[in-house]
Amino acid sequence: MKVIVAKQGGFCFGVKRATQIAFEAAEKKTGSTYSLGPIIHSPQVVRSLEEMGVKVLSDTDGVQEGTVIIRSHGVTEGELEKIHQQGLTILDATCPFVKKAQGYVKLLSESGYDVVVIGDADHPEVKGLVSFAKGRVFVVSSSDEAAELPQLKKIGIVAQTTQSFENFRAIVSICLDKGSEVRVYDTICDATTVRQDEARDLCVGVDQMIVIGGLDSANTRRLAEICHEILPGTHHVESIEQLDPAWFSGCSTVGVTAGASTPKWLIDEVVCYIKGLPQDKKD
Amino acid sequence: MKVIVAKQGGFCFGVKRATQIAFEAAEKKTGSTYSLGPIIHSPQVVRSLEEMGVKVLSDTDGVQEGTVIIRSHGVTEGELEKIHQQGLTILDATCPFVKKAQGYVKLLSESGYDVVVIGDADHPEVKGLVSFAKGRVFVVSSSDEAAELPQLKKIGIVAQTTQSFENFRAIVSICLDKGSEVRVYDTICDATTVRQDEARDLCVGVDQMIVIGGLDSANTRRLAEICHEILPGTHHVESIEQLDPAWFSGCSTVGVTAGASTPKWLIDEVVCYIKGLPQDKKD
Repeated sequence: MKVIVAKQGGFCFGVKRATQIAFEAAEKKTGSTYSLGPIIHSPQVVRSLEEMGVKVLSDTDGVQEGTVIIRSHGVTEGELEKIHQQGLTILDATCPFVKKAQGYVKLLSESGYDVVVIGDADHPEVKGLVSFAKGRVFVVSSSDEAAELPQLKKIGIVAQTTQSFENFRAIVSICLDKGSEVRVYDTICDATTVRQDEARDLCVGVDQMIVIGGLDSANTRRLAEICHEILPGTHHVESIEQLDPAWFSGCSTVGVTAGASTPKWLIDEVVCYIKGLPQDKKD
Repeated sequence: MKVIVAKQGGFCFGVKRATQIAFEAAEKKTGSTYSLGPIIHSPQVVRSLEEMGVKVLSDTDGVQEGTVIIRSHGVTEGELEKIHQQGLTILDATCPFVKKAQGYVKLLSESGYDVVVIGDADHPEVKGLVSFAKGRVFVVSSSDEAAELPQLKKIGIVAQTTQSFENFRAIVSICLDKGSEVRVYDTICDATTVRQDEARDLCVGVDQMIVIGGLDSANTRRLAEICHEILPGTHHVESIEQLDPAWFSGCSTVGVTAGASTPKWLIDEVVCYIKGLPQDKKD
Protein backbone atom coordinates (compact mmCIF):
# COMPACT_ATOMS: atom_id res chain seq x y z
CA MET A 1 0.00 0.00 0.00
CA LYS A 2 1.39 3.38 -0.95
CA VAL A 3 0.90 6.04 1.72
CA ILE A 4 1.32 9.74 0.96
CA VAL A 5 1.69 11.93 4.03
CA ALA A 6 0.79 15.61 3.77
CA LYS A 7 3.89 17.77 4.27
CA GLN A 8 1.85 20.45 6.03
CA GLY A 9 -0.17 18.02 8.16
CA GLY A 10 0.26 17.97 11.94
CA PHE A 11 1.92 20.50 14.24
CA CYS A 12 1.89 24.08 13.08
CA PHE A 13 4.70 26.44 14.00
CA GLY A 14 3.05 27.69 17.21
CA VAL A 15 2.14 24.22 18.47
CA LYS A 16 5.60 22.86 17.68
CA ARG A 17 7.20 25.75 19.54
CA ALA A 18 4.89 25.43 22.58
CA THR A 19 5.47 21.68 22.80
CA GLN A 20 9.23 22.16 22.62
CA ILE A 21 9.16 24.82 25.37
CA ALA A 22 7.03 22.56 27.58
CA PHE A 23 9.15 19.43 27.12
CA GLU A 24 12.38 21.39 27.71
CA ALA A 25 10.93 22.79 30.93
CA ALA A 26 9.77 19.33 31.99
CA GLU A 27 13.21 17.86 31.35
CA LYS A 28 14.97 20.54 33.43
CA LYS A 29 12.89 19.57 36.48
CA THR A 30 13.65 22.86 38.27
CA GLY A 31 10.86 22.92 40.87
CA SER A 32 7.15 22.56 40.22
CA THR A 33 6.06 23.07 36.66
CA TYR A 34 2.48 23.78 35.61
CA SER A 35 0.63 24.64 32.48
CA LEU A 36 -2.36 26.95 32.70
CA GLY A 37 -4.86 25.00 30.62
CA PRO A 38 -3.66 22.18 28.36
CA ILE A 39 -0.50 23.32 26.57
CA ILE A 40 -1.90 22.33 23.16
CA HIS A 41 -5.14 20.61 22.04
CA SER A 42 -3.64 17.11 22.14
CA PRO A 43 -4.55 14.71 24.97
CA GLN A 44 -1.52 12.55 24.08
CA VAL A 45 0.97 15.40 24.43
CA VAL A 46 -0.67 16.65 27.62
CA ARG A 47 -0.50 13.11 29.08
CA SER A 48 3.20 12.76 28.20
CA LEU A 49 3.94 16.08 29.89
CA GLU A 50 1.93 15.08 32.95
CA GLU A 51 4.01 11.89 33.20
CA MET A 52 7.07 14.16 33.25
CA GLY A 53 5.56 16.19 36.09
CA VAL A 54 3.88 19.07 34.27
CA LYS A 55 0.55 19.54 35.98
CA VAL A 56 -2.36 21.12 34.12
CA LEU A 57 -4.09 23.83 36.15
CA SER A 58 -7.47 25.41 35.48
CA ASP A 59 -6.29 28.40 37.53
CA THR A 60 -3.25 29.27 39.65
CA ASP A 61 -5.14 29.67 42.94
CA GLY A 62 -3.05 28.50 45.88
CA VAL A 63 0.11 27.87 43.84
CA GLN A 64 3.01 28.98 46.06
CA GLU A 65 6.05 28.54 43.85
CA GLY A 66 7.24 27.19 40.52
CA THR A 67 6.94 27.82 36.81
CA VAL A 68 3.69 28.31 34.90
CA ILE A 69 3.81 27.55 31.18
CA ILE A 70 1.40 29.67 29.13
CA ARG A 71 -0.22 27.45 26.49
CA SER A 72 -0.07 28.08 22.72
CA HIS A 73 -3.56 29.64 22.61
CA GLY A 74 -2.52 32.21 25.22
CA VAL A 75 -4.36 33.15 28.39
CA THR A 76 -6.21 36.27 29.51
CA GLU A 77 -4.38 39.40 30.57
CA GLY A 78 -5.95 39.02 34.02
CA GLU A 79 -4.55 35.51 34.42
CA LEU A 80 -1.10 36.72 33.37
CA GLU A 81 -1.19 39.56 35.91
CA LYS A 82 -2.31 37.19 38.63
CA ILE A 83 0.65 34.85 37.98
CA HIS A 84 2.98 37.85 38.12
CA GLN A 85 1.47 38.96 41.42
CA GLN A 86 1.83 35.45 42.84
CA GLY A 87 5.58 35.71 42.15
CA LEU A 88 5.54 32.61 39.95
CA THR A 89 7.89 32.20 36.98
CA ILE A 90 6.18 32.58 33.61
CA LEU A 91 7.26 30.50 30.62
CA ASP A 92 5.35 32.00 27.74
CA ALA A 93 4.58 29.43 25.03
CA THR A 94 1.83 31.57 23.48
CA CYS A 95 1.97 31.20 19.68
CA PRO A 96 3.76 34.32 18.37
CA PHE A 97 0.89 34.87 15.90
CA VAL A 98 -1.62 34.85 18.75
CA LYS A 99 0.66 37.16 20.73
CA LYS A 100 0.68 39.56 17.79
CA ALA A 101 -3.12 39.52 17.62
CA GLN A 102 -3.29 40.21 21.37
CA GLY A 103 -1.01 43.20 20.81
CA TYR A 104 -3.29 44.52 18.07
CA VAL A 105 -6.35 44.23 20.32
CA LYS A 106 -4.51 46.25 22.97
CA LEU A 107 -3.28 48.84 20.46
CA LEU A 108 -6.70 49.27 18.83
CA SER A 109 -8.42 49.52 22.15
CA GLU A 110 -5.92 52.08 23.48
CA SER A 111 -6.33 54.08 20.25
CA GLY A 112 -10.05 54.49 20.84
CA TYR A 113 -11.42 51.73 18.62
CA ASP A 114 -14.25 49.45 19.61
CA VAL A 115 -12.77 46.01 18.97
CA VAL A 116 -14.41 43.23 16.99
CA VAL A 117 -12.81 39.80 17.36
CA ILE A 118 -13.83 37.42 14.59
CA GLY A 119 -13.91 33.97 16.10
CA ASP A 120 -15.53 31.54 18.48
CA ALA A 121 -16.32 33.24 21.81
CA ASP A 122 -15.79 30.00 23.74
CA HIS A 123 -12.32 29.30 22.34
CA PRO A 124 -9.44 29.97 24.78
CA GLU A 125 -7.55 31.98 22.14
CA VAL A 126 -10.55 34.30 21.70
CA LYS A 127 -11.07 34.61 25.47
CA GLY A 128 -7.42 35.67 25.67
CA LEU A 129 -7.74 38.17 22.79
CA VAL A 130 -10.86 39.75 24.29
CA SER A 131 -9.11 40.30 27.61
CA PHE A 132 -6.57 42.65 26.04
CA ALA A 133 -9.26 45.19 25.09
CA LYS A 134 -9.57 48.12 27.46
CA GLY A 135 -12.83 49.40 26.02
CA ARG A 136 -15.76 47.81 24.24
CA VAL A 137 -15.16 44.47 22.56
CA PHE A 138 -17.47 42.23 20.55
CA VAL A 139 -16.95 38.64 19.42
CA VAL A 140 -18.66 37.65 16.18
CA SER A 141 -18.38 34.31 14.45
CA SER A 142 -20.61 34.87 11.42
CA SER A 143 -22.01 37.50 9.08
CA ASP A 144 -25.38 37.18 10.82
CA GLU A 145 -23.79 38.02 14.15
CA ALA A 146 -21.88 40.92 12.58
CA ALA A 147 -25.14 42.32 11.21
CA GLU A 148 -26.40 42.50 14.81
CA LEU A 149 -23.52 44.77 15.92
CA PRO A 150 -24.63 48.24 17.04
CA GLN A 151 -23.69 51.37 15.11
CA LEU A 152 -20.15 52.29 16.17
CA LYS A 153 -17.64 54.92 15.08
CA LYS A 154 -14.09 53.57 15.02
CA ILE A 155 -14.01 49.79 14.64
CA GLY A 156 -10.82 47.75 15.04
CA ILE A 157 -10.92 44.17 13.79
CA VAL A 158 -8.73 41.15 14.46
CA ALA A 159 -9.43 37.47 13.84
CA GLN A 160 -8.84 34.26 15.72
CA THR A 161 -5.74 32.89 13.96
CA THR A 162 -7.56 29.82 12.65
CA GLN A 163 -10.51 31.63 11.05
CA SER A 164 -11.29 31.07 7.38
CA PHE A 165 -10.39 34.04 5.22
CA GLU A 166 -13.79 34.06 3.51
CA ASN A 167 -15.63 34.39 6.82
CA PHE A 168 -13.21 37.14 7.82
CA ARG A 169 -13.81 38.95 4.52
CA ALA A 170 -17.59 38.67 4.83
CA ILE A 171 -17.61 40.01 8.40
CA VAL A 172 -15.27 42.92 7.58
CA SER A 173 -17.56 43.79 4.69
CA ILE A 174 -20.54 44.03 7.05
CA CYS A 175 -18.55 46.05 9.59
CA LEU A 176 -18.11 48.74 6.91
CA ASP A 177 -21.80 49.52 7.50
CA LYS A 178 -21.23 49.87 11.22
CA GLY A 179 -18.63 52.62 11.51
CA SER A 180 -16.95 55.44 9.64
CA GLU A 181 -13.46 54.07 10.28
CA VAL A 182 -12.65 50.39 10.11
CA ARG A 183 -9.12 49.24 10.86
CA VAL A 184 -8.49 45.61 10.10
CA TYR A 185 -5.56 43.41 11.05
CA ASP A 186 -5.49 40.14 9.16
CA THR A 187 -4.27 37.92 11.99
CA ILE A 188 -5.26 34.69 10.28
CA CYS A 189 -2.39 32.23 10.23
CA ASP A 190 -1.61 30.72 6.83
CA ALA A 191 -0.87 27.30 8.34
CA THR A 192 -4.56 26.34 8.39
CA THR A 193 -5.19 27.36 4.78
CA VAL A 194 -1.97 25.80 3.55
CA ARG A 195 -2.82 22.53 5.32
CA GLN A 196 -6.35 22.56 3.87
CA ASP A 197 -5.16 23.36 0.34
CA GLU A 198 -2.61 20.58 0.47
CA ALA A 199 -5.26 18.13 1.73
CA ARG A 200 -7.55 19.07 -1.17
CA ASP A 201 -4.76 18.36 -3.65
CA LEU A 202 -3.89 15.12 -1.92
CA CYS A 203 -7.49 13.83 -2.02
CA VAL A 204 -7.53 13.97 -5.79
CA GLY A 205 -4.73 11.43 -6.23
CA VAL A 206 -5.56 8.83 -3.59
CA ASP A 207 -8.17 6.08 -3.03
CA GLN A 208 -8.66 6.70 0.67
CA MET A 209 -7.90 9.59 3.02
CA ILE A 210 -7.19 9.45 6.76
CA VAL A 211 -7.33 12.62 8.85
CA ILE A 212 -5.75 12.32 12.29
CA GLY A 213 -6.50 14.55 15.25
CA GLY A 214 -8.73 15.13 18.26
CA LEU A 215 -12.41 14.54 17.46
CA ASP A 216 -13.10 17.78 19.36
CA SER A 217 -10.40 19.73 17.51
CA ALA A 218 -12.13 22.33 15.33
CA ASN A 219 -9.31 22.57 12.79
CA THR A 220 -9.10 18.77 12.40
CA ARG A 221 -12.85 18.44 11.98
CA ARG A 222 -12.81 21.14 9.30
CA LEU A 223 -9.89 19.37 7.59
CA ALA A 224 -11.85 16.10 7.57
CA GLU A 225 -14.92 17.88 6.17
CA ILE A 226 -12.90 19.33 3.30
CA CYS A 227 -11.48 15.90 2.44
CA HIS A 228 -14.90 14.31 2.78
CA GLU A 229 -16.30 16.68 0.13
CA ILE A 230 -13.78 15.32 -2.38
CA LEU A 231 -13.41 11.77 -1.09
CA PRO A 232 -16.66 10.80 0.66
CA GLY A 233 -14.94 7.74 2.19
CA THR A 234 -12.52 9.92 4.24
CA HIS A 235 -12.11 8.88 7.89
CA HIS A 236 -11.25 11.07 10.87
CA VAL A 237 -9.47 9.20 13.67
CA GLU A 238 -7.66 10.10 16.88
CA SER A 239 -5.25 7.17 16.83
CA ILE A 240 -4.57 3.76 15.24
CA GLU A 241 -7.05 2.05 17.58
CA GLN A 242 -9.87 3.55 15.53
CA LEU A 243 -8.60 2.37 12.15
CA ASP A 244 -10.52 -0.42 10.42
CA PRO A 245 -8.58 -2.58 7.92
CA ALA A 246 -11.75 -2.90 5.82
CA TRP A 247 -11.47 0.79 4.88
CA PHE A 248 -8.38 0.04 2.83
CA SER A 249 -9.65 -2.95 0.91
CA GLY A 250 -9.13 -2.37 -2.79
CA CYS A 251 -7.01 0.73 -2.18
CA SER A 252 -3.61 1.14 -3.76
CA THR A 253 -2.82 4.68 -2.48
CA VAL A 254 -3.81 6.24 0.84
CA GLY A 255 -3.39 9.89 1.83
CA VAL A 256 -2.74 10.94 5.42
CA THR A 257 -2.98 14.37 6.96
CA ALA A 258 -3.44 15.67 10.48
CA GLY A 259 -4.71 18.64 12.47
CA ALA A 260 -2.45 21.31 13.99
CA SER A 261 -2.22 19.62 17.39
CA THR A 262 -1.49 16.09 16.20
CA PRO A 263 2.02 14.96 17.22
CA LYS A 264 4.27 13.44 14.57
CA TRP A 265 4.55 10.09 16.34
CA LEU A 266 0.77 9.63 16.10
CA ILE A 267 0.97 10.25 12.34
CA ASP A 268 3.92 7.86 12.05
CA GLU A 269 1.98 5.14 13.89
CA VAL A 270 -0.94 5.46 11.52
CA VAL A 271 1.33 5.39 8.46
CA CYS A 272 3.12 2.27 9.79
CA TYR A 273 -0.20 0.58 10.46
CA ILE A 274 -1.52 1.20 6.96
CA LYS A 275 1.72 0.16 5.31
CA GLY A 276 1.61 -3.06 7.31
CA LEU A 277 -1.82 -4.05 6.06
CA PRO A 278 -2.06 -7.04 3.67
CA GLN A 279 -1.11 -5.82 0.20
CA ASP A 280 -3.92 -5.38 -2.23
CA LYS A 281 -3.53 -7.28 -5.51
CA LYS A 282 -3.63 -4.02 -7.48
CA ASP A 283 -0.72 -2.65 -5.46
CA MET B 1 -50.31 69.46 -13.66
CA LYS B 2 -49.06 68.45 -10.23
CA VAL B 3 -45.30 68.76 -9.81
CA ILE B 4 -43.48 67.09 -6.91
CA VAL B 5 -39.96 68.42 -6.33
CA ALA B 6 -37.48 66.20 -4.54
CA LYS B 7 -36.50 67.74 -1.19
CA GLN B 8 -32.94 66.43 -1.51
CA GLY B 9 -32.54 67.40 -5.17
CA GLY B 10 -30.05 70.08 -6.17
CA PHE B 11 -27.21 71.67 -4.21
CA CYS B 12 -25.61 69.51 -1.57
CA PHE B 13 -24.15 71.03 1.58
CA GLY B 14 -20.65 71.49 0.12
CA VAL B 15 -21.86 73.02 -3.14
CA LYS B 16 -24.23 75.37 -1.33
CA ARG B 17 -21.43 76.48 0.97
CA ALA B 18 -18.92 76.98 -1.86
CA THR B 19 -21.43 78.98 -3.91
CA GLN B 20 -22.23 81.18 -0.94
CA ILE B 21 -18.53 81.82 -0.25
CA ALA B 22 -17.93 82.69 -3.90
CA PHE B 23 -20.91 85.04 -4.26
CA GLU B 24 -20.06 86.79 -0.98
CA ALA B 25 -16.49 87.32 -2.21
CA ALA B 26 -17.76 88.58 -5.56
CA GLU B 27 -20.09 91.04 -3.87
CA LYS B 28 -17.33 92.46 -1.67
CA LYS B 29 -15.31 93.41 -4.77
CA THR B 30 -12.08 93.73 -2.78
CA GLY B 31 -9.48 93.49 -5.54
CA SER B 32 -9.20 90.76 -8.16
CA THR B 33 -11.05 87.54 -7.35
CA TYR B 34 -10.33 84.25 -9.03
CA SER B 35 -11.45 80.68 -8.72
CA LEU B 36 -8.96 77.93 -9.40
CA GLY B 37 -11.03 75.72 -11.66
CA PRO B 38 -14.81 76.19 -11.82
CA ILE B 39 -16.12 76.72 -8.29
CA ILE B 40 -18.78 74.02 -8.74
CA HIS B 41 -19.84 71.82 -11.68
CA SER B 42 -22.50 74.25 -12.90
CA PRO B 43 -21.91 76.37 -16.02
CA GLN B 44 -24.77 78.68 -14.98
CA VAL B 45 -23.28 79.44 -11.56
CA VAL B 46 -19.80 79.88 -13.02
CA ARG B 47 -21.21 82.28 -15.63
CA SER B 48 -23.04 84.35 -12.99
CA LEU B 49 -19.85 84.62 -10.95
CA GLU B 50 -17.86 85.60 -14.04
CA GLU B 51 -20.36 88.37 -14.69
CA MET B 52 -19.63 89.57 -11.16
CA GLY B 53 -15.89 89.59 -11.88
CA VAL B 54 -14.80 86.17 -10.59
CA LYS B 55 -12.39 84.85 -13.22
CA VAL B 56 -11.86 81.09 -13.57
CA LEU B 57 -8.17 80.15 -13.76
CA SER B 58 -6.69 76.86 -14.86
CA ASP B 59 -3.58 77.79 -12.86
CA THR B 60 -2.34 80.81 -10.91
CA ASP B 61 0.71 81.47 -13.11
CA GLY B 62 1.39 85.18 -13.40
CA VAL B 63 -1.28 86.26 -10.91
CA GLN B 64 0.24 89.16 -8.95
CA GLU B 65 -2.39 89.96 -6.36
CA GLY B 66 -5.92 89.19 -5.26
CA THR B 67 -8.00 86.39 -3.82
CA VAL B 68 -8.14 82.83 -5.09
CA ILE B 69 -11.25 80.85 -4.21
CA ILE B 70 -10.63 77.11 -3.85
CA ARG B 71 -13.49 75.25 -5.45
CA SER B 72 -15.75 72.72 -3.67
CA HIS B 73 -13.83 69.70 -5.07
CA GLY B 74 -10.58 71.05 -3.61
CA VAL B 75 -7.26 71.44 -5.39
CA THR B 76 -3.91 69.69 -5.07
CA GLU B 77 -1.57 70.37 -2.16
CA GLY B 78 0.99 71.65 -4.70
CA GLU B 79 -1.47 74.20 -6.07
CA LEU B 80 -2.30 75.35 -2.54
CA GLU B 81 1.38 75.80 -1.68
CA LYS B 82 1.98 77.70 -4.89
CA ILE B 83 -0.81 80.17 -4.11
CA HIS B 84 0.65 80.66 -0.64
CA GLN B 85 4.09 81.30 -2.11
CA GLN B 86 2.63 83.80 -4.58
CA GLY B 87 1.33 85.77 -1.58
CA LEU B 88 -2.25 85.55 -2.80
CA THR B 89 -5.19 85.42 -0.42
CA ILE B 90 -6.83 82.00 -0.22
CA LEU B 91 -10.58 81.66 0.24
CA ASP B 92 -11.09 77.98 0.85
CA ALA B 93 -14.47 76.75 -0.39
CA THR B 94 -13.39 73.10 -0.41
CA CYS B 95 -16.30 70.95 0.76
CA PRO B 96 -15.61 70.08 4.42
CA PHE B 97 -16.19 66.40 3.63
CA VAL B 98 -13.54 66.52 0.89
CA LYS B 99 -11.23 68.38 3.27
CA LYS B 100 -11.70 65.60 5.81
CA ALA B 101 -10.82 62.98 3.20
CA GLN B 102 -7.70 64.97 2.24
CA GLY B 103 -6.70 64.96 5.91
CA TYR B 104 -7.12 61.18 6.08
CA VAL B 105 -4.93 60.67 3.01
CA LYS B 106 -2.23 62.79 4.66
CA LEU B 107 -2.58 61.00 8.02
CA LEU B 108 -2.51 57.53 6.46
CA SER B 109 0.44 58.38 4.31
CA GLU B 110 2.40 59.90 7.20
CA SER B 111 1.59 56.80 9.29
CA GLY B 112 3.26 54.52 6.75
CA TYR B 113 0.26 53.29 4.81
CA ASP B 114 0.17 52.91 1.06
CA VAL B 115 -2.96 54.84 0.14
CA VAL B 116 -5.76 53.58 -2.08
CA VAL B 117 -8.22 56.23 -3.26
CA ILE B 118 -11.47 54.73 -4.54
CA GLY B 119 -12.70 56.99 -7.31
CA ASP B 120 -12.23 58.37 -10.77
CA ALA B 121 -8.57 59.28 -11.38
CA ASP B 122 -9.53 62.13 -13.72
CA HIS B 123 -11.89 63.83 -11.28
CA PRO B 124 -10.53 67.03 -9.68
CA GLU B 125 -11.52 65.84 -6.20
CA VAL B 126 -9.49 62.65 -6.66
CA LYS B 127 -6.52 64.55 -8.10
CA GLY B 128 -6.63 66.69 -4.98
CA LEU B 129 -6.89 63.70 -2.64
CA VAL B 130 -3.97 61.93 -4.31
CA SER B 131 -1.75 64.99 -3.89
CA PHE B 132 -1.95 64.77 -0.10
CA ALA B 133 -0.20 61.39 -0.03
CA LYS B 134 3.49 61.52 0.80
CA GLY B 135 4.21 57.94 -0.17
CA ARG B 136 2.70 55.47 -2.60
CA VAL B 137 -0.85 56.13 -3.72
CA PHE B 138 -3.13 54.18 -6.06
CA VAL B 139 -6.45 55.22 -7.58
CA VAL B 140 -8.92 52.42 -8.31
CA SER B 141 -12.42 52.84 -9.64
CA SER B 142 -13.56 49.21 -9.79
CA SER B 143 -13.06 45.77 -8.30
CA ASP B 144 -11.17 44.74 -11.42
CA GLU B 145 -8.70 47.58 -10.94
CA ALA B 146 -8.37 46.72 -7.24
CA ALA B 147 -7.52 43.14 -8.16
CA GLU B 148 -4.55 44.48 -10.13
CA LEU B 149 -3.03 46.22 -7.09
CA PRO B 150 0.35 44.83 -6.04
CA GLN B 151 0.85 43.02 -2.75
CA LEU B 152 1.25 45.69 -0.07
CA LYS B 153 1.57 45.62 3.71
CA LYS B 154 -0.32 48.49 5.33
CA ILE B 155 -3.13 49.79 3.16
CA GLY B 156 -5.06 52.99 3.93
CA ILE B 157 -8.30 53.52 2.02
CA VAL B 158 -10.42 56.60 1.41
CA ALA B 159 -13.12 57.18 -1.19
CA GLN B 160 -14.13 60.01 -3.45
CA THR B 161 -17.09 61.51 -1.57
CA THR B 162 -19.58 60.68 -4.33
CA GLN B 163 -18.69 56.98 -4.70
CA SER B 164 -21.39 54.35 -4.35
CA PHE B 165 -21.15 52.42 -1.11
CA GLU B 166 -21.42 49.07 -2.86
CA ASN B 167 -18.41 49.80 -5.07
CA PHE B 168 -16.52 50.97 -1.97
CA ARG B 169 -17.44 47.78 -0.12
CA ALA B 170 -16.39 45.56 -3.03
CA ILE B 171 -13.02 47.28 -3.41
CA VAL B 172 -12.28 47.19 0.33
CA SER B 173 -13.08 43.50 0.26
CA ILE B 174 -10.50 42.90 -2.46
CA CYS B 175 -7.91 45.04 -0.66
CA LEU B 176 -8.10 42.58 2.26
CA ASP B 177 -6.19 40.19 -0.01
CA LYS B 178 -3.51 42.78 -0.66
CA GLY B 179 -2.17 43.63 2.79
CA SER B 180 -2.03 42.45 6.38
CA GLU B 181 -3.43 45.71 7.72
CA VAL B 182 -6.23 47.60 6.02
CA ARG B 183 -7.42 50.88 7.50
CA VAL B 184 -10.54 52.24 5.90
CA TYR B 185 -12.12 55.66 6.21
CA ASP B 186 -15.64 55.80 4.84
CA THR B 187 -15.48 59.28 3.30
CA ILE B 188 -18.57 58.80 1.16
CA CYS B 189 -21.02 61.65 1.60
CA ASP B 190 -24.59 60.60 2.34
CA ALA B 191 -26.03 63.38 0.16
CA THR B 192 -25.66 61.33 -3.02
CA THR B 193 -27.33 58.22 -1.58
CA VAL B 194 -30.07 60.21 0.09
CA ARG B 195 -30.79 62.04 -3.19
CA GLN B 196 -30.83 58.76 -5.13
CA ASP B 197 -33.08 56.99 -2.60
CA GLU B 198 -35.53 59.89 -2.64
CA ALA B 199 -35.58 59.88 -6.46
CA ARG B 200 -36.37 56.15 -6.46
CA ASP B 201 -39.31 56.72 -4.13
CA LEU B 202 -40.51 59.68 -6.17
CA CYS B 203 -40.49 57.72 -9.45
CA VAL B 204 -43.02 55.25 -8.10
CA GLY B 205 -45.74 57.87 -7.62
CA VAL B 206 -45.42 60.02 -10.75
CA ASP B 207 -46.18 59.70 -14.49
CA GLN B 208 -43.05 61.46 -15.68
CA MET B 209 -39.68 62.29 -14.13
CA ILE B 210 -37.37 65.18 -14.99
CA VAL B 211 -33.76 65.15 -13.79
CA ILE B 212 -31.99 68.52 -14.05
CA GLY B 213 -28.22 68.99 -14.18
CA GLY B 214 -25.16 69.19 -16.40
CA LEU B 215 -25.12 66.47 -19.05
CA ASP B 216 -21.46 65.93 -18.10
CA SER B 217 -22.17 65.78 -14.37
CA ALA B 218 -21.50 62.24 -13.19
CA ASN B 219 -23.85 62.42 -10.21
CA THR B 220 -26.72 63.82 -12.34
CA ARG B 221 -26.23 61.16 -15.01
CA ARG B 222 -26.31 58.44 -12.35
CA LEU B 223 -29.46 59.99 -10.87
CA ALA B 224 -31.12 59.97 -14.30
CA GLU B 225 -30.11 56.34 -14.84
CA ILE B 226 -31.66 55.31 -11.53
CA CYS B 227 -34.93 57.07 -12.42
CA HIS B 228 -34.85 55.61 -15.93
CA GLU B 229 -34.73 52.08 -14.51
CA ILE B 230 -38.05 52.71 -12.75
CA LEU B 231 -39.64 55.18 -15.19
CA PRO B 232 -38.21 54.50 -18.66
CA GLY B 233 -39.63 57.81 -19.91
CA THR B 234 -37.39 59.86 -17.55
CA HIS B 235 -35.65 62.85 -19.17
CA HIS B 236 -32.33 64.43 -18.19
CA VAL B 237 -32.12 68.13 -19.08
CA GLU B 238 -29.77 71.00 -18.35
CA SER B 239 -32.40 73.75 -18.54
CA ILE B 240 -35.96 74.56 -19.67
CA GLU B 241 -34.81 75.02 -23.28
CA GLN B 242 -34.48 71.24 -23.57
CA LEU B 243 -37.97 70.44 -22.28
CA ASP B 244 -40.54 69.17 -24.80
CA PRO B 245 -44.22 69.74 -23.95
CA ALA B 246 -45.06 66.44 -25.65
CA TRP B 247 -43.34 64.56 -22.81
CA PHE B 248 -46.06 65.65 -20.43
CA SER B 249 -49.07 64.77 -22.53
CA GLY B 250 -51.42 62.57 -20.54
CA CYS B 251 -49.46 63.12 -17.32
CA SER B 252 -51.17 64.23 -14.15
CA THR B 253 -48.15 64.16 -11.80
CA VAL B 254 -44.52 64.98 -12.65
CA GLY B 255 -41.51 64.44 -10.40
CA VAL B 256 -38.48 66.73 -10.50
CA THR B 257 -35.07 66.17 -9.03
CA ALA B 258 -31.62 67.59 -9.72
CA GLY B 259 -27.92 66.84 -9.40
CA ALA B 260 -25.70 68.26 -6.66
CA SER B 261 -24.52 71.21 -8.72
CA THR B 262 -27.89 72.35 -10.04
CA PRO B 263 -28.88 75.76 -8.67
CA LYS B 264 -32.32 76.21 -7.15
CA TRP B 265 -33.41 78.83 -9.69
CA LEU B 266 -32.88 76.32 -12.51
CA ILE B 267 -35.11 73.83 -10.72
CA ASP B 268 -37.70 76.57 -10.08
CA GLU B 269 -37.71 77.52 -13.78
CA VAL B 270 -38.38 73.93 -14.80
CA VAL B 271 -41.15 73.56 -12.23
CA CYS B 272 -42.76 76.81 -13.40
CA TYR B 273 -42.57 75.70 -17.01
CA ILE B 274 -44.22 72.35 -16.34
CA LYS B 275 -46.93 73.90 -14.17
CA GLY B 276 -47.64 76.37 -16.98
CA LEU B 277 -48.28 73.67 -19.56
CA PRO B 278 -51.88 73.23 -20.80
CA GLN B 279 -53.75 71.17 -18.19
CA ASP B 280 -54.42 67.60 -19.08
CA LYS B 281 -58.09 66.55 -18.87
CA LYS B 282 -57.27 63.92 -16.23
CA ASP B 283 -55.81 66.59 -13.95
